[in-house]
Amino acid sequence: MALGTFITFEGIDGSGKSSQARLLAEHLQVTGHDAMLTREPGGSEGAEEIRRLLVEGDPDRWSAETEILLFTAARRDHLEKTIEPALAAGKIVVSDRFADSTRVYQGAARAALRDVVDQLHDRMIGVEPDLTFIIDMDPTKALSRGLARQSGEDRFEDLGLGFQEKLRTGFLALAQDFPNRCHVIDGARDISVIAAQIAKITSDHLK
Amino acid sequence: MALGTFITFEGIDGSGKSSQARLLAEHLQVTGHDAMLTREPGGSEGAEEIRRLLVEGDPDRWSAETEILLFTAARRDHLEKTIEPALAAGKIVVSDRFADSTRVYQGAARAALRDVVDQLHDRMIGVEPDLTFIIDMDPTKALSRGLARQSGEDRFEDLGLGFQEKLRTGFLALAQDFPNRCHVIDGARDISVIAAQIAKITSDHLK
Repeated sequence: MALGTFITFEGIDGSGKSSQARLLAEHLQVTGHDAMLTREPGGSEGAEEIRRLLVEGDPDRWSAETEILLFTAARRDHLEKTIEPALAAGKIVVSDRFADSTRVYQGAARAALRDVVDQLHDRMIGVEPDLTFIIDMDPTKALSRGLARQSGEDRFEDLGLGFQEKLRTGFLALAQDFPNRCHVIDGARDISVIAAQIAKITSDHLK
Repeated sequence: MALGTFITFEGIDGSGKSSQARLLAEHLQVTGHDAMLTREPGGSEGAEEIRRLLVEGDPDRWSAETEILLFTAARRDHLEKTIEPALAAGKIVVSDRFADSTRVYQGAARAALRDVVDQLHDRMIGVEPDLTFIIDMDPTKALSRGLARQSGEDRFEDLGLGFQEKLRTGFLALAQDFPNRCHVIDGARDISVIAAQIAKITSDHLK
């Protein structure tokens, strides 16, 4: 049913992926594409309400199992209300995080629950992006940027450096599992250099 | 691991099951048992936050699939934080609703998604009650009682009489699927007569 193109950005907290997602959506819009920017958890009215339960508060407030269920609930709502209607209308959907984050955060870094994550994804979501940019960065550097934001949405940053290192390993492994759609991008360079590389890969994909 | 006893109350909205759950917990306490009363959705700090997303607002705010994920997330938190620790300490846990409600509401009445409900239950919950009381009542009578409460938690009552009739059929079918633990109780009688019957069945079970 997907007439449009679904592009996702993934990476550890503070890697710069949200800025790059925004820059790509803006670049696509000014070059004449019907592109929209969205994010997870969130991206629809209901999913944004679930987001508050996930990104705020104590790191231990939910078990990894409950977290997987809440992220999948938010993703299902996001998919039904935002992503699928946009793709059906032929749009380019650029999402800051999607299912790969759950595969890495709850499936590998917080707990070894990848089989549960996969089972829920296959049954309740079933959609994969056409193109995924994994913004790779040294967790020490990324964590200092993330914490400096003090957004109040620091629940995962609060899990510390060791956790972020596990996440980086997980994202790099994922890129090898899905080589056709995943591009690992060096996030330590100048923001405009990174944006230009991503714009070029996207342009080649859209041709 | 369950040293205690897990008792659940099920039924359509307005059937009187919440009152009966409370009366049984009180009866057990005054007769010297270490009993506690809890409820779903809710029953733990996190699950009560998820409850607000589920029972308030527009009937169409979530799809049946998203609802199953949110109910299962709330149940997992309730199980981890409240039910399992209490059972492990040898308590009698009396819960106003549990997994049977999801089997009937989302698995049969709102949508034919019983296989999804069962898959999530088996994987993420896996616990069944020792004893279940299904309070049966004519939906016309029950619905007028439920709506009269005007609690602000009317999302499912707002789905109307036809929905409540499907629920009743679903609960009666469930009682046949799980005959060992399910007791169908005629909810149209005097509240104290019903409470006495439930206390007797519970007492026989605990012997």
